[in-house]
Amino acid sequence: MNGLFNPKSIVVLGVSDAIDNLGKNIISNLVNLGYRGTIYAVGPRGGEVFGLRVYRSVSELPGDAELAVILTPARFVSDMLAQCCEKGTHWAVISTAGFRERGREGETLEQGILKTSQRCAIRFVGPNCVGIANSANDLYAPFTALSEPFRKGKTAVFTQSGGVGLSLCLRLSTSGVGIGKFVSMGNKLDLDEADYLAYLMDDPETTLIYFYLEDFKRGRLFADLARRCSKPIILHKSNTSAASSIIARSHTAALATDDRVVDAMCRETGIVRVHSITEGLNGAKGLSLPPLKGKNLAVLSRSGGHAVTAADTCAALGFHLPALAQDVLDEARRQTRAGVIRLGNPLDLGDIFNLPFYARLVEKVLSQPDIDGVLFVHVSQMAVELDSSRGLVEKMSELSLQFGKPVATVLEIPFDERVRMEKGSDSPLFLDVVEAIEALAVNLRWNKTVAARLVKSESAAMSAQLTPVIAATAHGAGLSRELFSPGAENPSRDVQKWFDDIKKQNRQPLLDESLELLDLTGIPTAPWRIAKTLDELLDVSGDLGFPLALKAVSPSLVHKSDKGAIALNVADVASVRDEWHRLQNVSDDISGVVVQKMVPASRELVAGGKRDPSFGAVVIAGLGGILVEVMKDVSMRLAPIDIDSAMEMFGELSGKRILGRFRGMQEADLQAAARILVKVSQLMHHFPQLSEIDLNPVSLKDAGKGALALDARVVIADAIRD
Amino acid sequence: MNGLFNPKSIVVLGVSDAIDNLGKNIISNLVNLGYRGTIYAVGPRGGEVFGLRVYRSVSELPGDAELAVILTPARFVSDMLAQCCEKGTHWAVISTAGFRERGREGETLEQGILKTSQRCAIRFVGPNCVGIANSANDLYAPFTALSEPFRKGKTAVFTQSGGVGLSLCLRLSTSGVGIGKFVSMGNKLDLDEADYLAYLMDDPETTLIYFYLEDFKRGRLFADLARRCSKPIILHKSNTSAASSIIARSHTAALATDDRVVDAMCRETGIVRVHSITEGLNGAKGLSLPPLKGKNLAVLSRSGGHAVTAADTCAALGFHLPALAQDVLDEARRQTRAGVIRLGNPLDLGDIFNLPFYARLVEKVLSQPDIDGVLFVHVSQMAVELDSSRGLVEKMSELSLQFGKPVATVLEIPFDERVRMEKGSDSPLFLDVVEAIEALAVNLRWNKTVAARLVKSESAAMSAQLTPVIAATAHGAGLSRELFSPGAENPSRDVQKWFDDIKKQNRQPLLDESLELLDLTGIPTAPWRIAKTLDELLDVSGDLGFPLALKAVSPSLVHKSDKGAIALNVADVASVRDEWHRLQNVSDDISGVVVQKMVPASRELVAGGKRDPSFGAVVIAGLGGILVEVMKDVSMRLAPIDIDSAMEMFGELSGKRILGRFRGMQEADLQAAARILVKVSQLMHHFPQLSEIDLNPVSLKDAGKGALALDARVVIADAIRD
Repeated sequence: MNGLFNPKSIVVLGVSDAIDNLGKNIISNLVNLGYRGTIYAVGPRGGEVFGLRVYRSVSELPGDAELAVILTPARFVSDMLAQCCEKGTHWAVISTAGFRERGREGETLEQGILKTSQRCAIRFVGPNCVGIANSANDLYAPFTALSEPFRKGKTAVFTQSGGVGLSLCLRLSTSGVGIGKFVSMGNKLDLDEADYLAYLMDDPETTLIYFYLEDFKRGRLFADLARRCSKPIILHKSNTSAASSIIARSHTAALATDDRVVDAMCRETGIVRVHSITEGLNGAKGLSLPPLKGKNLAVLSRSGGHAVTAADTCAALGFHLPALAQDVLDEARRQTRAGVIRLGNPLDLGDIFNLPFYARLVEKVLSQPDIDGVLFVHVSQMAVELDSSRGLVEKMSELSLQFGKPVATVLEIPFDERVRMEKGSDSPLFLDVVEAIEALAVNLRWNKTVAARLVKSESAAMSAQLTPVIAATAHGAGLSRELFSPGAENPSRDVQKWFDDIKKQNRQPLLDESLELLDLTGIPTAPWRIAKTLDELLDVSGDLGFPLALKAVSPSLVHKSDKGAIALNVADVASVRDEWHRLQNVSDDISGVVVQKMVPASRELVAGGKRDPSFGAVVIAGLGGILVEVMKDVSMRLAPIDIDSAMEMFGELSGKRILGRFRGMQEADLQAAARILVKVSQLMHHFPQLSEIDLNPVSLKDAGKGALALDARVVIADAIRD
Repeated sequence: MNGLFNPKSIVVLGVSDAIDNLGKNIISNLVNLGYRGTIYAVGPRGGEVFGLRVYRSVSELPGDAELAVILTPARFVSDMLAQCCEKGTHWAVISTAGFRERGREGETLEQGILKTSQRCAIRFVGPNCVGIANSANDLYAPFTALSEPFRKGKTAVFTQSGGVGLSLCLRLSTSGVGIGKFVSMGNKLDLDEADYLAYLMDDPETTLIYFYLEDFKRGRLFADLARRCSKPIILHKSNTSAASSIIARSHTAALATDDRVVDAMCRETGIVRVHSITEGLNGAKGLSLPPLKGKNLAVLSRSGGHAVTAADTCAALGFHLPALAQDVLDEARRQTRAGVIRLGNPLDLGDIFNLPFYARLVEKVLSQPDIDGVLFVHVSQMAVELDSSRGLVEKMSELSLQFGKPVATVLEIPFDERVRMEKGSDSPLFLDVVEAIEALAVNLRWNKTVAARLVKSESAAMSAQLTPVIAATAHGAGLSRELFSPGAENPSRDVQKWFDDIKKQNRQPLLDESLELLDLTGIPTAPWRIAKTLDELLDVSGDLGFPLALKAVSPSLVHKSDKGAIALNVADVASVRDEWHRLQNVSDDISGVVVQKMVPASRELVAGGKRDPSFGAVVIAGLGGILVEVMKDVSMRLAPIDIDSAMEMFGELSGKRILGRFRGMQEADLQAAARILVKVSQLMHHFPQLSEIDLNPVSLKDAGKGALALDARVVIADAIRD
């Protein structure tokens, strides 16, 4: 994509000197903000803009154009691409709107453009976008007239909304973070979020990646790339509600996905998910500071109240405030005016009026090996402290770089001066104590992710037997084949046959078939049999031993949890007989009864999988009973997962305490539950026709004693549903 | 308190021309920012500051001083007050620090000051504070040199941290909200949060009240006042963690209270609680807009991405986006450039480049009766749109006032221009879509609170039989006496006697005594008896009928939930006999066994009360079992409560769904549970010696069929604990 961001020549199509012509703005940006390559303007009316001749057609251009920026009406775009092709163009930005967001007709136009672009080997941004920019070479091609260039930086801003993109660039320009490459992605007809991420991961001019997305075109690939990305990624994924979906569709043709899957994907890949521009900006500031390596902070504040709020926030976000070294405290004491502040961490500077001394204290604190970072709060009315405050802010930025530890500086000063200081500062400045500590938390989380990733990739490198499919996603690391089905191939021929058989019959599996799938996969179930007649039932009941659970089997009951179709705690032969007769009447298509040995319930989980339109196979774990039903207490991951991830998922459940030593019970056998979840994830991963699977409940015994699936619901894609 | 904020003369004590003298800053603020009364400076060195003579003692002053601002060392403060008394001073601001925050010696000094002030009839702010201000009469007395006066406004800013206070004043000055009165409260030795609130409630120059507090000195009174306050209150209560408590103590001598009680108090009184200055500022902006009367918003945005985020946030916060009138959409369509945006609500203005037309659309939308407020998002790089953008912002502010509906304007423009526009605007401007909608939510919540309060005070006015104690707190409205104990006085003589008896014995009540208290109070319990011997036990077992629960009673078991001391589901006489013998051995001081009829469990609640150091009696409701134990799913209120509040509390539980029609069960009898909770709250309210009470579980039958307390734990204050 270097051709897109570093073209030697650019042609802008759709330029005129009309007052409301947008192409003209692009010319203005290119000419006035210092782009040093060749600029061509093309428009049917000809004329001149910003001292540049407007050619009436591409064929008239005196030279080649590596990049084309197109703003002609939608119906001409395909033809424009074809003409540019003759001029050596391989990259294009199609700013023009009026495609799929306008319906069927627009979709046809899009198909035409795609065809032309493929024939001409042109890759393109858009359509329906504001444009691109690259501050490194002063290339500014948005169709909005910019008043000044971006502050140069190494943050890439790639957004599925031009408005959000330009807002971000404004804010990052003011904030001391800066921008490198900017892309307004529009409809992502050709280049999509996965293409951009793949490029940015290896782009030496990018150190921080910021995406604003309204949908995912290739979510799974995006996630797989993110998992291997060594640079932090901030993702503002909007369009999470039905109402947003309507505006998003009209806006950039986006479709909503399950938002919990996006959350799970971010947690898993280390992506920092944000929900507003302000939160995103704050995250970018946090990630622009030197890495925070641990949880130990020092808070130095000129305002005691800010220090109290900082301590509240540190406690809430899990930061520690270790004691400061005695010589630091002694030195602070010597500088206090009235000796009226108690010295500790937070350190209240309210009684010290010597600003340069603040920097000296911060320097001493940073040299303390058990302090990982500093929050410094400066409050000033600026009347007499303007110069000393400016010096202080610069010094904090220097100290942060010198020690390689973050110093998050909060400035509570008059706003006009604040804007000046932010623009001038090499480090980000924070407006609010809470935001600053949240930004440090983002920084810490990212550095933990990086550390964990290193460990994982080393262990993955040692494992040589990964199947190619799994190896392609670093995240498959650790999925050893024997987990799938003990002693069998991966997946076993029996499991494959089960899916083939069901497919042939074009229907959903019955309860006994679903349980059979678990048996074939090696997922432990409570001992069960299927009985087609009362005699069979009495026979197998004797084999299993009382008490028993009886469950009516019928096609019409597959997707209904009809309480009447189940009998629990059936204690003797007489009851078996009674229940058999009763169950025959719960539906008119009863094909048999599943008999299961009752397993004493201790702790219960729910293990399941589903298929997301953007991200594919997803695995879900929850606590059984009301915790999953009422509190929606679940954890998700993209499938497949390994044992470690399964254990992490259990650790994410709010009610996880009941899985440990609880009410006199021993710890539950989470390892056994994790093995089941891994197998569910592998089923989802290997069999695209499996659209949903639910093991509810999975009964957990005490640690070391196993776990059993007691019930199973399996849904096959494209098969007839009841 | 008018004397404090509108003095005709002020004396500042502790002034010198030394470079680091803080008293001098106060003189500078008073002289330079336009205070029009008489200003005196006093300091032992004499001399002159800012053209003003420094008198060597108070006695030398040529006239009276209504207000004294004291910055002398702590040990001289009491004497200074006495001297000022001679000069007609009735109000003082003691900025001096070094009192209780320094320990025992400081406390003694504080007591001396209190005594002197009472003798002299001087009320005072502080000690240990930055000072006060009143923008209405240009009175600026903080000891920090201010570079400019505050922006005038009607927001009162009263903070227990000078740094937070001055930061807030800076931000409010920039934001278009402005400030009226400002107080840095310091140690609250005399005037405390309740005094200030009582004054501000009736102050005609205050329309919005903003508190930053680190502790409550008179929390209960504060809450009672807040409940009757017709002006919105924003409360930033910090000091919520152990670490914060240490810094807060050294800083303004604050002690931590149970933060959940503060949350409950805010919810109940309509106070807007915030956790950062940014959040507080945002709330203040929201409350400065005209009242939002309903949930229907229109979103008009120049950026489609901002519109999508807005729709997400509206959905998350419960706002609706009704259809816009057809003529609005038609007019918008006529103005679109390429016809490339789908028109709806949110309305994407991205394809309309006529800024004045935006205002016209907003005007039309505001005149739609089913639209309660507007979110307007403007995004501009400002290059050519500077003047038109300024005009647009002014127009939005005018329209908002004209229609009496809030127009929350989000501005994404270059920051320097943004600061200029905010300073110039009569309405607050927002930086972020999410913040703007959150601010509208604060506005809506407050207006709902006001509406609910009107209904409640009308119904209270109709009820004439309130006891004086309860009537003193408006919130006791609706507590009719018969709720306490059917047919008896309020509280009944029996209940009073129960407490007297326990008090005489100076010990904690045993299980049977606790159950007896419930019976006396009219709280239904499962039928129970106490048996001291096996024969008695066999007798009463026959009376109650099987199955039974047996619970060993002993002083050493009162505060232990020892599973061994309970036998459930005891089914027959033989088992009763066995369990009796077993229970005799669980402790060596068994005084008897409580026998209860087993009640079939359907839904269970926990009802309880405790006493908070700041707020007094508190009542607590939770869902029984793991929901309260693992998920900490509880709701709290200050006691006493009425039936409506009890029902509201159940509605606040996250797992409330299980109380309705759930898993084939009917709705649970919440009315019966509410009656129990009300009685618990009345016990807590009437008997200060009751420090804790726990009914766990309370078993709920189906609606109309009642609720029973199955167990009770009662803790008496100051009695010996086991």
